[in-house]
Amino acid sequence: NSIRVAILTVSDTASLDANADKSGPTINEIVSKAGFICTEAVIVPDSIPRIQNQVKRWCDQGNIDWIITTGGTGFGVRDLTPEAISPLLERHASGLVHLLMATSLQHTPMAALSRPVAGTAKNTLIVTLPGSVRAVKENMDALVANGVVKHALELIQGGTGQNVHKNL
Amino acid sequence: NSIRVAILTVSDTASLDANADKSGPTINEIVSKAGFICTEAVIVPDSIPRIQNQVKRWCDQGNIDWIITTGGTGFGVRDLTPEAISPLLERHASGLVHLLMATSLQHTPMAALSRPVAGTAKNTLIVTLPGSVRAVKENMDALVANGVVKHALELIQGGTGQNVHKNL
Amino acid sequence: NSIRVAILTVSDTASLDANADKSGPTINEIVSKAGFICTEAVIVPDSIPRIQNQVKRWCDQGNIDWIITTGGTGFGVRDLTPEAISPLLERHASGLVHLLMATSLQHTPMAALSRPVAGTAKNTLIVTLPGSVRAVKENMDALVANGVVKHALELIQGGTGQNVHKNL
Ligand code: NA
Repeated sequence: NSIRVAILTVSDTASLDANADKSGPTINEIVSKAGFICTEAVIVPDSIPRIQNQVKRWCDQGNIDWIITTGGTGFGVRDLTPEAISPLLERHASGLVHLLMATSLQHTPMAALSRPVAGTAKNTLIVTLPGSVRAVKENMDALVANGVVKHALELIQGGTGQNVHKNL
Repeated sequence: NSIRVAILTVSDTASLDANADKSGPTINEIVSKAGFICTEAVIVPDSIPRIQNQVKRWCDQGNIDWIITTGGTGFGVRDLTPEAISPLLERHASGLVHLLMATSLQHTPMAALSRPVAGTAKNTLIVTLPGSVRAVKENMDALVANGVVKHALELIQGGTGQNVHKNL
Repeated sequence: NSIRVAILTVSDTASLDANADKSGPTINEIVSKAGFICTEAVIVPDSIPRIQNQVKRWCDQGNIDWIITTGGTGFGVRDLTPEAISPLLERHASGLVHLLMATSLQHTPMAALSRPVAGTAKNTLIVTLPGSVRAVKENMDALVANGVVKHALELIQGGTGQNVHKNL
Protein backbone atom coordinates (compact mmCIF):
# COMPACT_ATOMS: atom_id res chain seq x y z
CA ASN A 1 0.00 0.00 0.00
CA SER A 2 3.10 2.18 -0.32
CA ILE A 3 3.28 5.00 -2.84
CA ARG A 4 4.91 3.73 -6.03
CA VAL A 5 7.31 6.18 -7.65
CA ALA A 6 8.85 6.19 -11.13
CA ILE A 7 11.90 8.37 -11.70
CA LEU A 8 12.74 9.69 -15.16
CA THR A 9 16.17 11.25 -15.52
CA VAL A 10 16.22 13.46 -18.59
CA SER A 11 19.79 14.08 -19.72
CA ASP A 12 21.74 13.56 -22.92
CA THR A 13 24.89 12.96 -20.87
CA ALA A 14 23.38 10.46 -18.45
CA SER A 15 21.66 8.59 -21.27
CA LEU A 16 25.14 7.72 -22.57
CA ASP A 17 26.69 7.09 -19.14
CA ALA A 18 24.34 6.17 -16.29
CA ASN A 19 27.07 7.00 -13.77
CA ALA A 20 26.62 10.64 -14.69
CA ASP A 21 23.10 10.53 -13.23
CA LYS A 22 23.35 12.00 -9.75
CA SER A 23 19.85 13.43 -9.35
CA GLY A 24 17.95 10.20 -10.13
CA PRO A 25 19.66 8.26 -7.31
CA THR A 26 19.16 11.26 -5.00
CA ILE A 27 15.42 11.14 -5.61
CA ASN A 28 15.45 7.37 -5.06
CA GLU A 29 17.10 7.83 -1.67
CA ILE A 30 14.65 10.53 -0.59
CA VAL A 31 11.52 8.63 -1.61
CA SER A 32 12.82 5.46 0.06
CA LYS A 33 13.48 7.31 3.32
CA ALA A 34 9.92 8.69 3.08
CA GLY A 35 8.54 5.13 2.95
CA PHE A 36 7.65 5.24 -0.74
CA ILE A 37 8.83 2.59 -3.22
CA CYS A 38 10.75 3.47 -6.35
CA THR A 39 9.52 0.79 -8.77
CA GLU A 40 11.04 2.20 -11.95
CA ALA A 41 14.02 4.40 -12.82
CA VAL A 42 14.81 5.20 -16.43
CA ILE A 43 17.22 7.58 -18.15
CA VAL A 44 16.27 9.18 -21.47
CA PRO A 45 18.04 11.83 -23.57
CA ASP A 46 16.57 15.35 -23.90
CA SER A 47 14.10 14.26 -26.54
CA ILE A 48 10.42 15.17 -26.45
CA PRO A 49 9.18 11.88 -27.97
CA ARG A 50 11.46 9.80 -25.73
CA ILE A 51 10.21 11.61 -22.61
CA GLN A 52 6.58 11.41 -23.69
CA ASN A 53 6.70 7.71 -24.65
CA GLN A 54 8.11 6.72 -21.27
CA VAL A 55 5.72 8.89 -19.26
CA LYS A 56 2.65 7.77 -21.25
CA ARG A 57 3.66 4.12 -20.79
CA TRP A 58 3.91 4.62 -17.00
CA CYS A 59 0.54 6.40 -16.86
CA ASP A 60 -1.08 3.63 -18.92
CA GLN A 61 0.39 0.87 -16.72
CA GLY A 62 -1.85 1.98 -13.88
CA ASN A 63 0.60 0.92 -11.18
CA ILE A 64 2.61 4.13 -10.84
CA ASP A 65 1.37 6.77 -8.38
CA TRP A 66 3.96 9.47 -8.87
CA ILE A 67 6.26 10.19 -11.80
CA ILE A 68 9.17 12.47 -10.95
CA THR A 69 11.31 13.77 -13.79
CA THR A 70 14.68 15.38 -13.20
CA GLY A 71 16.54 17.55 -15.70
CA GLY A 72 15.70 19.52 -18.80
CA THR A 73 13.63 22.21 -17.07
CA GLY A 74 16.06 25.09 -17.60
CA PHE A 75 17.01 27.45 -20.44
CA GLY A 76 19.64 25.25 -22.14
CA VAL A 77 19.12 24.73 -25.86
CA ARG A 78 18.18 21.07 -25.23
CA ASP A 79 15.98 21.71 -22.16
CA LEU A 80 12.51 20.62 -23.24
CA THR A 81 11.10 18.55 -20.39
CA PRO A 82 8.23 20.98 -19.56
CA GLU A 83 7.29 21.13 -23.25
CA ALA A 84 7.20 17.29 -23.32
CA ILE A 85 5.17 16.90 -20.13
CA SER A 86 2.75 19.83 -20.34
CA PRO A 87 0.59 18.42 -23.19
CA LEU A 88 0.24 15.13 -21.28
CA LEU A 89 -1.26 16.79 -18.20
CA GLU A 90 -5.04 16.52 -17.92
CA ARG A 91 -5.10 18.74 -14.83
CA HIS A 92 -2.42 21.35 -14.17
CA ALA A 93 -1.33 21.77 -10.56
CA SER A 94 -0.53 25.49 -10.25
CA GLY A 95 -0.31 25.13 -6.47
CA LEU A 96 2.46 22.55 -6.59
CA VAL A 97 4.39 24.65 -9.11
CA HIS A 98 4.02 27.64 -6.78
CA LEU A 99 5.27 25.60 -3.82
CA LEU A 100 8.31 24.40 -5.79
CA MET A 101 9.22 27.87 -6.98
CA ALA A 102 8.64 29.57 -3.62
CA THR A 103 10.79 26.97 -1.88
CA SER A 104 13.62 27.09 -4.43
CA LEU A 105 13.75 30.88 -4.50
CA GLN A 106 14.31 30.92 -0.74
CA HIS A 107 17.64 29.24 -1.47
CA THR A 108 18.83 31.10 -4.58
CA PRO A 109 17.49 33.60 -7.10
CA MET A 110 18.93 31.30 -9.79
CA ALA A 111 15.96 29.02 -9.10
CA ALA A 112 14.06 31.45 -11.33
CA LEU A 113 15.80 29.70 -14.23
CA SER A 114 13.69 26.60 -13.70
CA ARG A 115 10.43 26.22 -15.62
CA PRO A 116 8.58 23.49 -13.69
CA VAL A 117 5.19 22.02 -14.54
CA ALA A 118 3.09 19.61 -12.46
CA GLY A 119 -0.27 17.94 -12.71
CA THR A 120 -2.14 14.72 -13.23
CA ALA A 121 -2.62 12.31 -16.11
CA LYS A 122 -5.09 9.50 -15.41
CA ASN A 123 -4.42 8.57 -11.76
CA THR A 124 -0.78 9.54 -11.83
CA LEU A 125 0.82 12.68 -10.41
CA ILE A 126 3.65 14.08 -12.53
CA VAL A 127 6.17 16.65 -11.30
CA THR A 128 9.20 18.00 -13.18
CA LEU A 129 12.27 18.79 -11.09
CA PRO A 130 15.51 20.51 -12.16
CA GLY A 131 18.60 18.42 -12.85
CA SER A 132 20.87 19.61 -10.07
CA VAL A 133 21.17 17.52 -6.92
CA ARG A 134 20.84 20.58 -4.73
CA ALA A 135 17.62 21.71 -6.39
CA VAL A 136 16.22 18.17 -6.31
CA LYS A 137 16.80 17.92 -2.56
CA GLU A 138 15.09 21.26 -1.89
CA ASN A 139 12.13 20.46 -4.13
CA MET A 140 11.64 16.93 -2.82
CA ASP A 141 11.76 18.24 0.72
CA ALA A 142 8.92 20.68 -0.08
CA LEU A 143 6.83 17.93 -1.69
CA VAL A 144 7.41 15.10 0.76
CA ALA A 145 7.73 16.90 4.09
CA ASN A 146 4.33 17.91 5.49
CA GLY A 147 2.72 15.13 3.45
CA VAL A 148 1.77 17.38 0.53
CA VAL A 149 2.25 14.71 -2.16
CA LYS A 150 0.90 11.96 0.07
CA HIS A 151 -2.39 13.83 0.42
CA ALA A 152 -2.47 14.74 -3.28
CA LEU A 153 -2.17 11.05 -4.17
CA GLU A 154 -4.81 10.06 -1.62
CA LEU A 155 -7.22 12.41 -3.40
CA ILE A 156 -6.16 11.50 -6.96
CA GLN A 157 -6.92 7.89 -6.16
CA GLY A 158 -10.40 8.56 -4.92
CA GLY A 159 -9.86 9.08 -1.20
CA THR A 160 -12.25 11.33 0.63
CA GLY A 161 -9.37 13.54 1.67
CA GLN A 162 -10.84 14.03 5.15
CA ASN A 163 -7.34 14.43 6.56
CA VAL A 164 -6.51 16.99 3.96
CA HIS A 165 -9.67 18.98 4.30
CA LYS A 166 -9.34 19.22 8.04
CA ASN A 167 -6.02 20.98 7.45
CA LEU A 168 -7.08 23.33 4.68
CA ASN B 1 -22.80 51.48 -8.16
CA SER B 2 -21.77 48.62 -5.87
CA ILE B 3 -19.77 45.67 -7.17
CA ARG B 4 -22.14 42.87 -8.15
CA VAL B 5 -20.95 39.39 -7.23
CA ALA B 6 -22.18 35.97 -8.36
CA ILE B 7 -21.18 32.96 -6.27
CA LEU B 8 -20.99 29.50 -7.81
CA THR B 9 -20.63 26.64 -5.36
CA VAL B 10 -19.28 23.60 -7.18
CA SER B 11 -20.01 20.44 -5.20
CA ASP B 12 -21.79 17.16 -5.88
CA THR B 13 -22.82 16.99 -2.23
CA ALA B 14 -24.15 20.53 -1.95
CA SER B 15 -26.01 20.20 -5.27
CA LEU B 16 -28.15 17.53 -3.57
CA ASP B 17 -28.41 19.30 -0.21
CA ALA B 18 -27.93 23.07 -0.16
CA ASN B 19 -27.42 22.97 3.63
CA ALA B 20 -24.11 21.25 2.97
CA ASP B 21 -22.84 24.43 1.29
CA LYS B 22 -20.76 26.25 3.88
CA SER B 23 -18.30 28.12 1.63
CA GLY B 24 -20.92 29.84 -0.56
CA PRO B 25 -22.59 31.55 2.41
CA THR B 26 -19.15 32.43 3.81
CA ILE B 27 -18.28 34.25 0.59
CA ASN B 28 -21.66 35.99 0.66
CA GLU B 29 -20.99 37.29 4.18
CA ILE B 30 -17.51 38.55 3.27
CA VAL B 31 -18.57 40.37 0.10
CA SER B 32 -21.52 41.95 1.92
CA LYS B 33 -19.26 43.23 4.68
CA ALA B 34 -17.00 44.67 1.98
CA GLY B 35 -19.91 46.66 0.59
CA PHE B 36 -20.38 44.51 -2.51
CA ILE B 37 -23.75 42.97 -3.47
CA CYS B 38 -24.20 39.27 -4.01
CA THR B 39 -26.87 39.22 -6.75
CA GLU B 40 -26.70 35.52 -7.59
CA ALA B 41 -25.75 32.34 -5.75
CA VAL B 42 -26.04 28.98 -7.46
CA ILE B 43 -24.93 25.45 -6.61
CA VAL B 44 -23.92 23.04 -9.37
CA PRO B 45 -22.44 19.52 -9.21
CA ASP B 46 -18.81 18.87 -10.25
CA SER B 47 -19.69 18.84 -13.93
CA ILE B 48 -17.73 20.77 -16.56
CA PRO B 49 -20.77 21.60 -18.75
CA ARG B 50 -22.87 22.62 -15.73
CA ILE B 51 -20.12 24.93 -14.47
CA GLN B 52 -19.48 26.40 -17.91
CA ASN B 53 -23.16 26.97 -18.74
CA GLN B 54 -23.74 28.93 -15.54
CA VAL B 55 -20.56 31.00 -15.83
CA LYS B 56 -21.14 31.79 -19.52
CA ARG B 57 -24.73 32.86 -18.75
CA TRP B 58 -23.49 35.25 -16.05
CA CYS B 59 -20.80 36.72 -18.33
CA ASP B 60 -23.36 37.19 -21.12
CA GLN B 61 -25.86 38.89 -18.79
CA GLY B 62 -23.54 41.87 -18.52
CA ASN B 63 -24.64 42.73 -15.00
CA ILE B 64 -22.18 40.63 -13.00
CA ASP B 65 -18.82 42.18 -12.11
CA TRP B 66 -17.16 39.32 -10.28
CA ILE B 67 -17.84 35.57 -10.42
CA ILE B 68 -16.39 33.64 -7.49
CA THR B 69 -16.45 29.85 -7.67
CA THR B 70 -15.81 27.70 -4.61
CA GLY B 71 -14.92 24.02 -4.72
CA GLY B 72 -13.53 21.58 -7.24
CA THR B 73 -10.03 23.06 -7.42
CA GLY B 74 -8.20 20.19 -5.71
CA PHE B 75 -6.93 16.73 -6.68
CA GLY B 76 -10.13 14.74 -6.02
CA VAL B 77 -11.30 12.57 -8.90
CA ARG B 78 -14.26 14.90 -9.47
CA ASP B 79 -12.32 18.18 -9.04
CA LEU B 80 -12.56 19.86 -12.45
CA THR B 81 -13.43 23.50 -11.79
CA PRO B 82 -10.15 24.92 -13.19
CA GLU B 83 -10.57 22.75 -16.31
CA ALA B 84 -14.11 24.15 -16.74
CA ILE B 85 -13.15 27.80 -16.18
CA SER B 86 -9.76 28.03 -17.90
CA PRO B 87 -11.07 27.76 -21.51
CA LEU B 88 -13.61 30.54 -20.76
CA LEU B 89 -10.93 33.05 -19.74
CA GLU B 90 -10.00 35.58 -22.41
CA ARG B 91 -7.23 37.03 -20.26
CA HIS B 92 -5.45 34.98 -17.60
CA ALA B 93 -4.57 36.78 -14.37
CA SER B 94 -1.29 35.18 -13.28
CA GLY B 95 -0.83 37.88 -10.65
CA LEU B 96 -4.08 37.10 -8.87
CA VAL B 97 -3.26 33.39 -8.91
CA HIS B 98 0.15 34.19 -7.42
CA LEU B 99 -1.44 36.32 -4.70
CA LEU B 100 -3.91 33.54 -3.81
CA MET B 101 -1.22 30.89 -3.62
CA ALA B 102 1.28 33.03 -1.72
CA THR B 103 -1.39 33.95 0.83
CA SER B 104 -2.67 30.40 1.28
CA LEU B 105 0.80 28.90 1.63
CA GLN B 106 1.51 31.26 4.53
CA HIS B 107 -1.21 29.37 6.41
CA THR B 108 -0.51 25.75 5.42
CA PRO B 109 1.65 23.82 2.95
CA MET B 110 -1.53 21.86 2.08
CA ALA B 111 -2.61 24.95 0.12
CA ALA B 112 -0.30 23.59 -2.59
CA LEU B 113 -3.08 21.10 -3.32
CA SER B 114 -5.22 23.85 -4.81
CA ARG B 115 -5.04 24.55 -8.54
CA PRO B 116 -6.59 28.02 -8.87
CA VAL B 117 -7.16 29.96 -12.08
CA ALA B 118 -8.30 33.57 -12.48
CA GLY B 119 -8.92 35.99 -15.29
CA THR B 120 -11.48 37.89 -17.29
CA ALA B 121 -14.22 36.98 -19.74
CA LYS B 122 -15.93 39.97 -21.34
CA ASN B 123 -16.18 42.55 -18.52
CA THR B 124 -16.37 39.97 -15.76
CA LEU B 125 -13.61 38.90 -13.39
CA ILE B 126 -13.61 35.19 -12.54
CA VAL B 127 -11.70 33.64 -9.64
CA THR B 128 -11.77 30.00 -8.51
CA LEU B 129 -11.48 29.41 -4.76
CA PRO B 130 -11.09 26.10 -2.90
CA GLY B 131 -14.09 24.52 -1.20
CA SER B 132 -13.01 24.75 2.41
CA VAL B 133 -14.36 27.59 4.55
CA ARG B 134 -10.93 28.26 5.98
CA ALA B 135 -9.29 28.57 2.57
CA VAL B 136 -12.15 30.73 1.30
CA LYS B 137 -11.71 33.19 4.17
CA GLU B 138 -7.95 33.46 3.60
CA ASN B 139 -8.33 33.89 -0.15
CA MET B 140 -11.17 36.41 0.06
CA ASP B 141 -9.19 38.42 2.57
CA ALA B 142 -6.27 38.64 0.12
CA LEU B 143 -8.57 39.70 -2.73
CA VAL B 144 -10.81 42.16 -0.91
CA ALA B 145 -8.47 43.71 1.65
CA ASN B 146 -6.22 46.37 0.11
CA GLY B 147 -8.77 46.86 -2.65
CA VAL B 148 -7.07 44.50 -5.11
CA VAL B 149 -10.28 43.25 -6.72
CA LYS B 150 -11.95 46.66 -6.49
CA HIS B 151 -9.16 48.17 -8.58
CA ALA B 152 -9.13 45.24 -11.00
CA LEU B 153 -12.84 45.76 -11.65
CA GLU B 154 -12.40 49.51 -12.03
CA LEU B 155 -9.92 48.82 -14.82
CA ILE B 156 -11.87 45.95 -16.44
CA GLN B 157 -14.83 48.28 -16.77
CA GLY B 158 -12.90 50.99 -18.52
CA GLY B 159 -11.75 53.17 -15.63
CA THR B 160 -8.55 55.09 -16.03
CA GLY B 161 -7.09 53.31 -13.05
CA GLN B 162 -5.41 56.51 -11.79
CA ASN B 163 -5.79 55.31 -8.21
CA VAL B 164 -4.23 52.00 -9.10
CA HIS B 165 -1.36 53.43 -11.10
CA LYS B 166 -0.41 55.84 -8.39
CA ASN B 167 0.13 52.83 -6.15
CA LEU B 168 2.02 50.65 -8.60
CA ASN C 1 29.90 40.48 -26.54
CA SER C 2 27.44 42.55 -24.48
CA ILE C 3 23.84 41.48 -24.06
CA ARG C 4 21.70 43.20 -26.73
CA VAL C 5 18.33 44.41 -25.50
CA ALA C 6 15.27 45.57 -27.43
CA ILE C 7 12.64 47.57 -25.55
CA LEU C 8 9.03 47.60 -26.68
CA THR C 9 6.82 50.20 -25.04
CA VAL C 10 3.19 49.18 -25.46
CA SER C 11 0.92 52.19 -24.96
CA ASP C 12 -1.74 53.94 -27.00
CA THR C 13 -0.79 57.24 -25.38
CA ALA C 14 2.95 56.95 -25.92
CA SER C 15 2.45 55.79 -29.51
CA LEU C 16 0.98 59.23 -30.20
CA ASP C 17 3.46 61.17 -28.06
CA ALA C 18 6.83 59.55 -27.37
CA ASN C 19 7.44 62.00 -24.52
CA ALA C 20 4.72 60.19 -22.59
CA ASP C 21 6.91 57.08 -22.50
CA LYS C 22 8.58 57.05 -19.10
CA SER C 23 9.08 53.32 -18.59
CA GLY C 24 10.96 52.65 -21.85
CA PRO C 25 13.71 55.18 -21.01
CA THR C 26 13.82 53.81 -17.44
CA ILE C 27 14.53 50.33 -18.77
CA ASN C 28 17.16 51.75 -21.12
CA GLU C 29 18.96 53.40 -18.19
CA ILE C 30 18.89 50.23 -16.09
CA VAL C 31 20.18 47.93 -18.82
CA SER C 32 22.92 50.42 -19.72
CA LYS C 33 24.08 50.59 -16.09
CA ALA C 34 24.14 46.80 -16.06
CA GLY C 35 26.54 46.80 -19.01
CA PHE C 36 23.98 45.62 -21.55
CA ILE C 37 23.33 47.48 -24.84
CA CYS C 38 19.89 48.70 -25.83
CA THR C 39 20.05 48.32 -29.62
CA GLU C 40 16.37 48.97 -30.35
CA ALA C 41 13.54 50.87 -28.68
CA VAL C 42 10.12 51.04 -30.29
CA ILE C 43 6.71 52.28 -29.17
CA VAL C 44 3.54 50.56 -30.41
CA PRO C 45 -0.12 51.08 -29.48
CA ASP C 46 -2.03 48.42 -27.49
CA SER C 47 -2.63 46.29 -30.58
CA ILE C 48 -2.01 42.54 -30.68
CA PRO C 49 -0.83 42.48 -34.33
CA ARG C 50 1.41 45.54 -33.85
CA ILE C 51 3.03 43.96 -30.77
CA GLN C 52 3.43 40.58 -32.44
CA ASN C 53 4.87 41.95 -35.69
CA GLN C 54 7.57 43.89 -33.87
CA VAL C 55 8.49 41.04 -31.52
CA LYS C 56 8.57 38.45 -34.33
CA ARG C 57 10.79 40.74 -36.42
CA TRP C 58 13.25 41.08 -33.53
CA CYS C 59 13.31 37.31 -32.89
CA ASP C 60 13.88 36.65 -36.61
CA GLN C 61 16.72 39.20 -36.81
CA GLY C 62 18.86 36.94 -34.65
CA ASN C 63 20.79 39.81 -33.09
CA ILE C 64 18.55 40.54 -30.10
CA ASP C 65 19.19 38.63 -26.88
CA TRP C 66 16.45 39.99 -24.67
CA ILE C 67 13.15 41.66 -25.56
CA ILE C 68 11.59 43.62 -22.71
CA THR C 69 8.05 44.90 -23.17
CA THR C 70 6.56 47.48 -20.85
CA GLY C 71 2.84 48.23 -20.54
CA GLY C 72 -0.39 46.47 -21.35
CA THR C 73 -0.10 43.73 -18.74
CA GLY C 74 -2.92 44.89 -16.45
CA PHE C 75 -6.73 44.72 -16.42
CA GLY C 76 -7.48 47.81 -18.53
CA VAL C 77 -9.79 47.22 -21.47
CA ARG C 78 -6.89 47.72 -23.89
CA ASP C 79 -4.32 45.69 -21.91
CA LEU C 80 -3.45 42.77 -24.18
CA THR C 81 0.34 42.44 -24.12
CA PRO C 82 0.37 38.96 -22.47
CA GLU C 83 -2.22 37.77 -25.01
CA ALA C 84 0.02 39.04 -27.82
CA ILE C 85 3.25 37.55 -26.45
CA SER C 86 2.08 34.22 -25.02
CA PRO C 87 1.41 32.50 -28.40
CA LEU C 88 4.90 33.53 -29.60
CA LEU C 89 6.67 31.76 -26.70
CA GLU C 90 8.15 28.38 -27.56
CA ARG C 91 9.16 27.76 -23.95
CA HIS C 92 7.33 29.37 -21.04
CA ALA C 93 9.46 30.51 -18.11
CA SER C 94 7.25 29.94 -15.06
CA GLY C 95 10.22 30.57 -12.78
CA LEU C 96 10.86 34.06 -14.11
CA VAL C 97 7.15 34.89 -13.81
CA HIS C 98 7.23 33.67 -10.21
CA LEU C 99 10.29 35.79 -9.45
CA LEU C 100 8.64 38.89 -10.93
CA MET C 101 5.42 38.40 -9.00
CA ALA C 102 7.10 37.50 -5.70
CA THR C 103 9.31 40.59 -5.96
CA SER C 104 6.50 42.96 -6.91
CA LEU C 105 4.17 41.69 -4.21
CA GLN C 106 6.79 42.51 -1.59
CA HIS C 107 6.26 46.16 -2.52
CA THR C 108 2.47 46.34 -2.96
CA PRO C 109 -0.52 43.98 -3.12
CA MET C 110 -1.60 45.94 -6.23
CA ALA C 111 1.16 44.08 -8.07
CA ALA C 112 -1.39 41.24 -8.22
CA LEU C 113 -3.04 43.26 -10.98
CA SER C 114 -0.20 42.47 -13.35
CA ARG C 115 -0.44 39.43 -15.61
CA PRO C 116 3.17 38.85 -16.72
CA VAL C 117 4.41 36.16 -19.10
CA ALA C 118 8.01 35.24 -19.92
CA GLY C 119 9.81 32.70 -22.04
CA THR C 120 11.87 32.10 -25.12
CA ALA C 121 11.30 32.29 -28.86
CA LYS C 122 14.20 31.08 -30.97
CA ASN C 123 17.31 32.32 -29.09
CA THR C 124 15.60 35.34 -27.63
CA LEU C 125 14.32 35.81 -24.08
CA ILE C 126 11.07 37.76 -23.82
CA VAL C 127 9.73 39.28 -20.60
CA THR C 128 6.63 41.45 -20.20
CA LEU C 129 6.83 44.19 -17.57
CA PRO C 130 4.06 46.50 -16.31
CA GLY C 131 3.87 50.06 -17.58
CA SER C 132 4.57 51.97 -14.39
CA VAL C 133 8.08 53.26 -13.76
CA ARG C 134 8.02 52.03 -10.18
CA ALA C 135 7.05 48.48 -11.18
CA VAL C 136 9.61 48.48 -13.99
CA LYS C 137 12.41 49.39 -11.57
CA GLU C 138 11.43 46.65 -9.11
CA ASN C 139 11.09 44.01 -11.82
CA MET C 140 14.31 44.94 -13.61
CA ASP C 141 16.15 44.84 -10.31
CA ALA C 142 14.95 41.27 -9.72
CA LEU C 143 15.98 40.19 -13.22
CA VAL C 144 19.33 41.95 -13.52
CA ALA C 145 20.65 41.85 -9.97
CA ASN C 146 22.10 38.44 -9.07
CA GLY C 147 22.72 37.78 -12.75
CA VAL C 148 19.47 35.86 -13.29
CA VAL C 149 18.89 37.06 -16.86
CA LYS C 150 22.60 36.98 -17.69
CA HIS C 151 22.71 33.27 -16.83
CA ALA C 152 19.43 32.58 -18.64
CA LEU C 153 20.86 34.13 -21.82
CA GLU C 154 24.13 32.24 -21.42
CA LEU C 155 22.12 29.00 -21.46
CA ILE C 156 19.69 30.04 -24.21
CA GLN C 157 22.65 30.71 -26.45
CA GLY C 158 24.21 27.32 -25.96
CA GLY C 159 26.52 27.94 -23.01
CA THR C 160 27.26 25.05 -20.70
CA GLY C 161 25.86 27.01 -17.82
CA GLN C 162 28.63 25.79 -15.48
CA ASN C 163 28.41 29.02 -13.49
CA VAL C 164 24.68 28.61 -13.16
CA HIS C 165 24.72 24.97 -12.23
CA LYS C 166 27.31 25.52 -9.54
CA ASN C 167 24.82 27.87 -7.91
CA LEU C 168 21.71 25.75 -8.27
NA1 NA D 1 19.61 20.43 -17.05
